[in-house]
Amino acid sequence: MKPSEYALDDPIAAVATALAPAALGIVRTSGNNSIERASSAFSRPDALKTAPGNTLVHGWIVDSGGNRIDEVVAAVYRAPKSFTGEDSVEFIGHGGPAAVLAVFRTLLRAGFRQAERGEFTFRAFANGKTDLSRAEAIQEIVDARTDAARAKAAGRLAGNLSERIHEISASIVQVLAAIEVQIEYPEDEETTKGAFDAAALREAAEQLSALHATWAAEKLYQDGARLVLAGRTNAGKSSMFNTLLKEERAIVSEIHGTTRDWLEARADFSGIPVSIFDTAGLRKTDDRIEAEGVERSKGLAADADAVLYLVDAREGLNEEDRRFIRECLEAGGPPLVLVWNKCDHPDAKPAPDAEPGARAVVKTSAKKATGIDSLVQTVVSLLTGKLPGGEAGRRASLGTERQRRAVEHTLEYVNHALEAAQNGFPMDAVAQDLEDALLALGEITGEVSGADILDAVFSGFCVGK
Amino acid sequence: MKPSEYALDDPIAAVATALAPAALGIVRTSGNNSIERASSAFSRPDALKTAPGNTLVHGWIVDSGGNRIDEVVAAVYRAPKSFTGEDSVEFIGHGGPAAVLAVFRTLLRAGFRQAERGEFTFRAFANGKTDLSRAEAIQEIVDARTDAARAKAAGRLAGNLSERIHEISASIVQVLAAIEVQIEYPEDEETTKGAFDAAALREAAEQLSALHATWAAEKLYQDGARLVLAGRTNAGKSSMFNTLLKEERAIVSEIHGTTRDWLEARADFSGIPVSIFDTAGLRKTDDRIEAEGVERSKGLAADADAVLYLVDAREGLNEEDRRFIRECLEAGGPPLVLVWNKCDHPDAKPAPDAEPGARAVVKTSAKKATGIDSLVQTVVSLLTGKLPGGEAGRRASLGTERQRRAVEHTLEYVNHALEAAQNGFPMDAVAQDLEDALLALGEITGEVSGADILDAVFSGFCVGK
Repeated sequence: MKPSEYALDDPIAAVATALAPAALGIVRTSGNNSIERASSAFSRPDALKTAPGNTLVHGWIVDSGGNRIDEVVAAVYRAPKSFTGEDSVEFIGHGGPAAVLAVFRTLLRAGFRQAERGEFTFRAFANGKTDLSRAEAIQEIVDARTDAARAKAAGRLAGNLSERIHEISASIVQVLAAIEVQIEYPEDEETTKGAFDAAALREAAEQLSALHATWAAEKLYQDGARLVLAGRTNAGKSSMFNTLLKEERAIVSEIHGTTRDWLEARADFSGIPVSIFDTAGLRKTDDRIEAEGVERSKGLAADADAVLYLVDAREGLNEEDRRFIRECLEAGGPPLVLVWNKCDHPDAKPAPDAEPGARAVVKTSAKKATGIDSLVQTVVSLLTGKLPGGEAGRRASLGTERQRRAVEHTLEYVNHALEAAQNGFPMDAVAQDLEDALLALGEITGEVSGADILDAVFSGFCVGK
Repeated sequence: MKPSEYALDDPIAAVATALAPAALGIVRTSGNNSIERASSAFSRPDALKTAPGNTLVHGWIVDSGGNRIDEVVAAVYRAPKSFTGEDSVEFIGHGGPAAVLAVFRTLLRAGFRQAERGEFTFRAFANGKTDLSRAEAIQEIVDARTDAARAKAAGRLAGNLSERIHEISASIVQVLAAIEVQIEYPEDEETTKGAFDAAALREAAEQLSALHATWAAEKLYQDGARLVLAGRTNAGKSSMFNTLLKEERAIVSEIHGTTRDWLEARADFSGIPVSIFDTAGLRKTDDRIEAEGVERSKGLAADADAVLYLVDAREGLNEEDRRFIRECLEAGGPPLVLVWNKCDHPDAKPAPDAEPGARAVVKTSAKKATGIDSLVQTVVSLLTGKLPGGEAGRRASLGTERQRRAVEHTLEYVNHALEAAQNGFPMDAVAQDLEDALLALGEITGEVSGADILDAVFSGFCVGK
């Protein structure tokens, strides 16, 4: 079902916490009569039915046969003082998958419908409890892979993006209002004078550009970057993989790509979530071991955001290494860092200052975890070096591609208005551009929003939001 | 730190929900001054400080610099009306790992100490909010891998085991009391008559035996069983693995054992959680493919609770298959089911009625998912066939090995008392046996419990419980 087709107040339920062994779990409900309906699956129906909003009621979830399913605390919210703006009960119970699912199924049998993706947040939006950019921020918080990403989304949830949009919107409205007066009362000399405030509009355009530029950094912090460890078999890829995991607070320690012959791990590089791919752990099926290490890396490298090419400092670069680096460059591949590994070894050769095709040379010892900070900083610089603007989001930044497009459209209309005014077009045309600009900008917070926008926003949510 | 050494009321905090992307997450706190302390990290400190027990307060977690960390609802509990019996606040926020950990770290900086394993439940026990067997049931619920296991644990949490223990205990106390009167007033003919109620004690012993017998089934439902798919490479192990996953509601769909050359999946066989191991997906490194499939299965089979030995019905059994089955039997291995797979094929040979070394023969087609129910029921019969008593737990059953040992000890003392009485030992000796029996039985609910028992119970908990 599309979000814009969601029925708006029938009682819905969803498992709201992750399904894994844990102390607590939550099954969330909302909708018309949800408290009454939940009472029929509760050991103390009257206590629940008569509970005031914002209170907690202790009891058991019981099925229609009177069997006790799980001991829970019911958090009761009464409309409009709830996340959705509707009556709502959250059951906080024990956290194992079996317990949470048993509570959920009991509620479905008591007449709740399974919630669709994002349906809780959709109701919050529909009932005026949140605007679109803040609704999107909720999912961004849930998906945040590093604390930096979480902090940026929390800022948007707190409304810093909405405020920024309102400020820019207000300044455009002011310019538009002045024009409208001029159109309405063209004979009034007093009002017509300086009716078109080009400076204010240029200022708005600059602010829109700055906001638009925040998206590249935001996207990097949200989606993260793919790093590939490449190099011949004995270059120390496996040690480097493990060292990076240990030093850079890996969130998921090892994902085995058995079918695709690589390992993936996720780590936090100064707030940027990175996925590190390694061909380590491959079985050596024949004698062409060295060639294979390099060949397998090549396929992965093509899709990467950066390649860490490891060389055993005792051996230095051979023809095979140079061919990989050259081919990577020629193919228009990602930036490549030459990692002069095992540099602490007594037999280590000195690292070159530079190597054609490599964007940087970093000396490391994966085994002793030396040079890792320098490697991480080099990678971060490469990743953020491409970003426009250095200040990167003290203030509000955009959180979604949808928002970026809206700002882009707004900017196009504003620039068109400026151009039209400069070329002496009638003020009607300028006013039309500014109206279109405001419509486009309004889409960010949802003050203007069609069904297609709602569908795009809420279908990306997880169930239970 | 050992649970018995936990400080009893300093403020503690823990992440209580699973750390994975989800709509909601909970960080739980408890202890002396916990509401006051939590207020210092809350956007509306006065609202939180003055909130009555069992109420919800909306706000933001904020760090000491005033940065908004996450929007939360604070569930406020005031002593003694809380899970722990102490003042307590649960912060319900957004559910991504980054958001939940950011809230948790902010609370640690506000003066909370990270909770140890089981520390919340330990406090609940120490403050008389739960007995030991019910405390154990909480962790059993969290760990339950099937709904059947969850239901049994929920029964214990509701107190059915505690009640059963109290009933048996009361009947032993009655027998003991009568003996004590006889010892105290030996001259009183009236009281001495029928002082030792052997029939009542035999009844207690029978009830203890029945309770003791519940453990085998309980353990099967808790720990589950390990099934190994064995057979030559083309017997269809891989298809069977996938079909069993699909048909039997796999909870964890595929765990790759890259380093150990097998796949593991978990499924629900009539309430019994089973782990299915397969050597499918192995790379074919040389020409000895068939031998390898069989050899690898052998190592896994030794540790299994049952072996499903697949044969391609078109080929039938060859010498290699027969050797595997024979060796498995000779090694005292687990029961083996001969699975006559691909039996729907036009070239399929008829299945044998029986095969030496196999406990059963089942005809299947993994590809068409036929015969799967029959296979599952055959496995379930094999697994439960060993269990004593068929009725298996309408009533209370034991939940932990610790409880089983306590019942065993109680039973030993009761039987010893019966024997002593029968052999004409002095009533003092019989009384001593019954006192020891009551002490052992009391350990189950913790009415009598030393530090070592507490450590054993609570150190198995997850943090946040």
